[in-house]
Amino acid sequence: MTRKDGRENDQLRPVTIERGWSAHAEGSALITVGGTKVLCTASFTNGVPRWLTGKGKGWVTAEYAMLPRATNSRNDRESIKGKVGGRTHEISRLIGRALRAVVDTKALGENTIVIDCDVLQADGGTRTAAITGAYVALADAIAWGREKKFIAQRSEVLRDSVAAVSVGIIDGEPMLDLAYVEDVRAETDMNVVVTGRGLFVEVQGTAEGAPFDKAELDRLLDLAVNGCADLRGIQSAALEA
Amino acid sequence: MTRKDGRENDQLRPVTIERGWSAHAEGSALITVGGTKVLCTASFTNGVPRWLTGKGKGWVTAEYAMLPRATNSRNDRESIKGKVGGRTHEISRLIGRALRAVVDTKALGENTIVIDCDVLQADGGTRTAAITGAYVALADAIAWGREKKFIAQRSEVLRDSVAAVSVGIIDGEPMLDLAYVEDVRAETDMNVVVTGRGLFVEVQGTAEGAPFDKAELDRLLDLAVNGCADLRGIQSAALEA
Amino acid sequence: MTRKDGRENDQLRPVTIERGWSAHAEGSALITVGGTKVLCTASFTNGVPRWLTGKGKGWVTAEYAMLPRATNSRNDRESIKGKVGGRTHEISRLIGRALRAVVDTKALGENTIVIDCDVLQADGGTRTAAITGAYVALADAIAWGREKKFIAQRSEVLRDSVAAVSVGIIDGEPMLDLAYVEDVRAETDMNVVVTGRGLFVEVQGTAEGAPFDKAELDRLLDLAVNGCADLRGIQSAALEA
Amino acid sequence: MTRKDGRENDQLRPVTIERGWSAHAEGSALITVGGTKVLCTASFTNGVPRWLTGKGKGWVTAEYAMLPRATNSRNDRESIKGKVGGRTHEISRLIGRALRAVVDTKALGENTIVIDCDVLQADGGTRTAAITGAYVALADAIAWGREKKFIAQRSEVLRDSVAAVSVGIIDGEPMLDLAYVEDVRAETDMNVVVTGRGLFVEVQGTAEGAPFDKAELDRLLDLAVNGCADLRGIQSAALEA
Amino acid sequence: MTRKDGRENDQLRPVTIERGWSAHAEGSALITVGGTKVLCTASFTNGVPRWLTGKGKGWVTAEYAMLPRATNSRNDRESIKGKVGGRTHEISRLIGRALRAVVDTKALGENTIVIDCDVLQADGGTRTAAITGAYVALADAIAWGREKKFIAQRSEVLRDSVAAVSVGIIDGEPMLDLAYVEDVRAETDMNVVVTGRGLFVEVQGTAEGAPFDKAELDRLLDLAVNGCADLRGIQSAALEA
Amino acid sequence: MTRKDGRENDQLRPVTIERGWSAHAEGSALITVGGTKVLCTASFTNGVPRWLTGKGKGWVTAEYAMLPRATNSRNDRESIKGKVGGRTHEISRLIGRALRAVVDTKALGENTIVIDCDVLQADGGTRTAAITGAYVALADAIAWGREKKFIAQRSEVLRDSVAAVSVGIIDGEPMLDLAYVEDVRAETDMNVVVTGRGLFVEVQGTAEGAPFDKAELDRLLDLAVNGCADLRGIQSAALEA
Repeated sequence: MTRKDGRENDQLRPVTIERGWSAHAEGSALITVGGTKVLCTASFTNGVPRWLTGKGKGWVTAEYAMLPRATNSRNDRESIKGKVGGRTHEISRLIGRALRAVVDTKALGENTIVIDCDVLQADGGTRTAAITGAYVALADAIAWGREKKFIAQRSEVLRDSVAAVSVGIIDGEPMLDLAYVEDVRAETDMNVVVTGRGLFVEVQGTAEGAPFDKAELDRLLDLAVNGCADLRGIQSAALEA
Repeated sequence: MTRKDGRENDQLRPVTIERGWSAHAEGSALITVGGTKVLCTASFTNGVPRWLTGKGKGWVTAEYAMLPRATNSRNDRESIKGKVGGRTHEISRLIGRALRAVVDTKALGENTIVIDCDVLQADGGTRTAAITGAYVALADAIAWGREKKFIAQRSEVLRDSVAAVSVGIIDGEPMLDLAYVEDVRAETDMNVVVTGRGLFVEVQGTAEGAPFDKAELDRLLDLAVNGCADLRGIQSAALEA
Repeated sequence: MTRKDGRENDQLRPVTIERGWSAHAEGSALITVGGTKVLCTASFTNGVPRWLTGKGKGWVTAEYAMLPRATNSRNDRESIKGKVGGRTHEISRLIGRALRAVVDTKALGENTIVIDCDVLQADGGTRTAAITGAYVALADAIAWGREKKFIAQRSEVLRDSVAAVSVGIIDGEPMLDLAYVEDVRAETDMNVVVTGRGLFVEVQGTAEGAPFDKAELDRLLDLAVNGCADLRGIQSAALEA
Repeated sequence: MTRKDGRENDQLRPVTIERGWSAHAEGSALITVGGTKVLCTASFTNGVPRWLTGKGKGWVTAEYAMLPRATNSRNDRESIKGKVGGRTHEISRLIGRALRAVVDTKALGENTIVIDCDVLQADGGTRTAAITGAYVALADAIAWGREKKFIAQRSEVLRDSVAAVSVGIIDGEPMLDLAYVEDVRAETDMNVVVTGRGLFVEVQGTAEGAPFDKAELDRLLDLAVNGCADLRGIQSAALEA
Repeated sequence: MTRKDGRENDQLRPVTIERGWSAHAEGSALITVGGTKVLCTASFTNGVPRWLTGKGKGWVTAEYAMLPRATNSRNDRESIKGKVGGRTHEISRLIGRALRAVVDTKALGENTIVIDCDVLQADGGTRTAAITGAYVALADAIAWGREKKFIAQRSEVLRDSVAAVSVGIIDGEPMLDLAYVEDVRAETDMNVVVTGRGLFVEVQGTAEGAPFDKAELDRLLDLAVNGCADLRGIQSAALEA
Repeated sequence: MTRKDGRENDQLRPVTIERGWSAHAEGSALITVGGTKVLCTASFTNGVPRWLTGKGKGWVTAEYAMLPRATNSRNDRESIKGKVGGRTHEISRLIGRALRAVVDTKALGENTIVIDCDVLQADGGTRTAAITGAYVALADAIAWGREKKFIAQRSEVLRDSVAAVSVGIIDGEPMLDLAYVEDVRAETDMNVVVTGRGLFVEVQGTAEGAPFDKAELDRLLDLAVNGCADLRGIQSAALEA
């Protein structure tokens, strides 16, 4: 059995990372994973929120959103609804945690980096694409801060890299990097965030259809770890370009 | 090394489930897990939201909230802030997914059950206590619906039971059912939702301090599966009382 | 003619006050008046809101809310609606005024006490039960503040005690402490807040059906003053326990 | 002792009611009570809100608001704050209850009247002035509805008239119709709503400074009943003009 | 062809400006333009918003709103809807820009003037009436500030006067100062803000029906400039009264 | 004197229109005007809002927004602030009016087209770029509707094309298509919306610094009309590609 787009079960969709997309942001990346396109910008500001002042530590946070027609049918804007939905909140928090897991906030010093991940077009895996792209934007914003002397020259702010991918079980088959048409059919859906060294930062598995057992979980995690290693290579290539 | 409250690493805190706490709700349970107390009520209404009408399926959803002084220092009310926070959203969605995973919505018929989980007092593990208590309230609301003939007599609405527990790694040691003082020190924190048959419904692991490896993940999952089996026994006892 | 629950017209429902219900709050009480259950917590913080700083006076305020399924049918959460309703606002303000009427804010010093009154189950008279229970929580929070030296040892913060009860006219008969089924039938409905010395703090009488005359008003106030005297005894017993 | 503006303790400030102020509303009145000016408009619409449809009854409701510079210093607009304050809610509800107390909603038929009371200038007693003026606007809106045949010719929609006044105790002296400078000094403050026949619709007494006793309450109610009788005369004159 | 109210195409409706309408505001004017009545109050406060502190400049801003029944059918209050509509926002910004165009903020010094323009009754041209009336209120607030020594005696805060009027094309005819019945029929609608010296501050022309050409634009601007000159006279008369 | 980027005063910045950018929307265009990039998507739905049902007419509306880091420093998201700002409202309304001016809503039939204009990067002239790009997205969405038979084959929905440009006076010189650095220095700023036939749809001129006279206005309009003619050519080329 083959996948709709001809991929193998353990194969990523085509991934590109256009680094420095934004003329204004201190770091930015437009990541494309198949039909999913996410613009990630990192805004660096000297100083921290009031509740963190004077502790010698920096702050990294993230906000995720979708353009109204990023999806197949139009969604109302959250600005007009006057509130941020649960899904948006949840994903923003996930991205923030994933990035902070590889940041040494002491080394960052009293600086703040806000990462905006705006989905321009969605075709499954927007939150994991956001994390993978956000890491590149973050790395550049940190480089900018070091160049501007807001960060000490020798401090190692990034302890590791971080990338993420979705995996799922469809018709009993574990598959890597689900496109939207696959995602809606998945019995189990899992988002996995992995560091460059291959350690887990976040494992979020949900039984959409039937509950899953330990063996299925293990196979999904294997797929995810390998997929993230591939993404790590693409991130490195972008950052070295 | 022993835990602050004298428990073993694989031991739950004392758990009680006071079934039928509410005089008004179709199903209810006050669950106590150590110092955590959550009031779960299930409100049954005949009919479904408009977007589901005519599909012959029911709907189960959940809302989680905390009283302002459930915690050690007072939090402002979300009603007064005028918006529901990201954490509240995230937990409400988790509880709803966990319950729906064991509900056959066709068997439920065009009926809606709303589960409210209000934390009266918090000492860690409020979301998992909420799921465990909510299952009892849900089971009673379904029984009520059957008695009132809103649900067909022979239909099996519940495919399985469901319970949840938190696990975490503290000073390198995997531990079951973290109290608040443990939770804030955990390097890795995981909430696991398990069915009565021992299958996973949700696995949410987060590296708070250092990323974790596969071996640690496996040990945590083992603890959680065993803890949920114990909770399953307490749920059964409450429902048979 | 007797009342549905067999009470005399001038008789309170069974009242219990469980003092110190909360493990976290500086003062707390779970008050039960028939089927009405209100959890009152008093949160003490050293310091006052900015607009009161430097005036040598403290601040006491209250917030009232109902759990969504405290009532016979479920009400949507105000947090999700994104705004606090008129009734909630009105009752919160009433409770705050009632408590401040017996507090010497100079003696309290620059400290703030926030009283949260959360209705866990409702069967009429929730606002008056909240006031009666809140007084007990307030007294304990003040004692806590004195013990922690935030309040001067000799200062008498409480000038008097305060309790409240509802009264109403049903089928022409004045009655004390209306249960919900009585409340909806009442032609006139009055909430009366009385100090331990028997003076009025608040009198709120409303003609729900027919306007009322002075003689009816007088009979209702008599009932209320006596009912509050009984409540005063129950408060004292709880505080001396 | 005389009052700042030379009035006797039992004397109203100068009151004028400009009936039909608005070119658009079905009923309207600009009421002036000393320095307090409230524009009351009554908007008549055929039909009722959905929850009342088909019950053969009408609906009367009210909304109260203040222009931002109606008071001595400017208040931020509630529209810009994005929420209606507790005081506004409370007064809107009071006005609505007061008017409904004299309306036979069956006789009104399935029609809705919304009364808007907008304070153009405030000098104490704005809520009671609003009720007194709103009655005139309401009477005209009902007359309009009858003329347009939305209300049956012979049905008596108004069972009585209604007016309101504030009373209070200042330096131990009961006084009628408090101006702002008096209101802020009052130990006890009471708003009383009285029908044309002299019956009470609403009695709201609050101890601002010291609690009050029954004798004080009685003296205040006497003042209020007499004041409302005077207002009744002014309403009649306006409606007959 | 004559207009419905008998006016010539280049004729204003009757305009009156009641200066000093408010007892509280530092400057105020009730402007009437035909059936349109707008209460303009200017609130002067010493000091500026935080973002302007220490720059030696003052701040002038405006807020526009309509009473719910200012119009022919009732509109819901923006305070209750919980948000300010686009039209309200747009007009508030227009008024603020128009006034700031004639204010020397350096000469004003670190003082803030907030102009509130509340439409009590609407019959077309409310935004232009608001600007014309607001100028009078502004001038008086500046005079107040000078008298109170918040503004230096010799500084010329107002560089010019400002007034506004609407013009439009109806059935191919350019007309001045459109009443509501004219406004809804206009093919092109233009609001023009002109200084006392006859220079443009704002030109906002919109094709409601058919696009317009340069010749039509020119004729409309001529009408507007002449209309504003007349309004300038009425402003002067009010300020000299 | 030359402009910072070497352009002549009557010269547009480089403009590109990438038609069909979105895989999901019925019409879309990514327009680039110098450093300004706006993604315009047109969402076609069969049917109209309730208030328009049964009138045989369609509806075209627009929403404008900026990504948080589209600008030089980051702006908070309106979704998180919980309200849409005045500027956003104003521009959304302008775009909607501009497009409706060339649409025959009868010919469109009971269909709705929502245009979303999201600024991905801002360098002045975002609202005019949005209009120019939105026209291309609109044209494609109409073509889609005709192909899907939602629009009658022979009906001419578009009466004309529409484009927009900003003009302004800088140091006394009228200039076309202001970049951000020019915009902030402009004494007068004007946005002009012009049809393909050269007629005005909207003229919005604002004196930012000094008021302007008729001669200046005329020179600005000339520049704008010529600039829009150039934009018309670029739109045509995109639509014919």
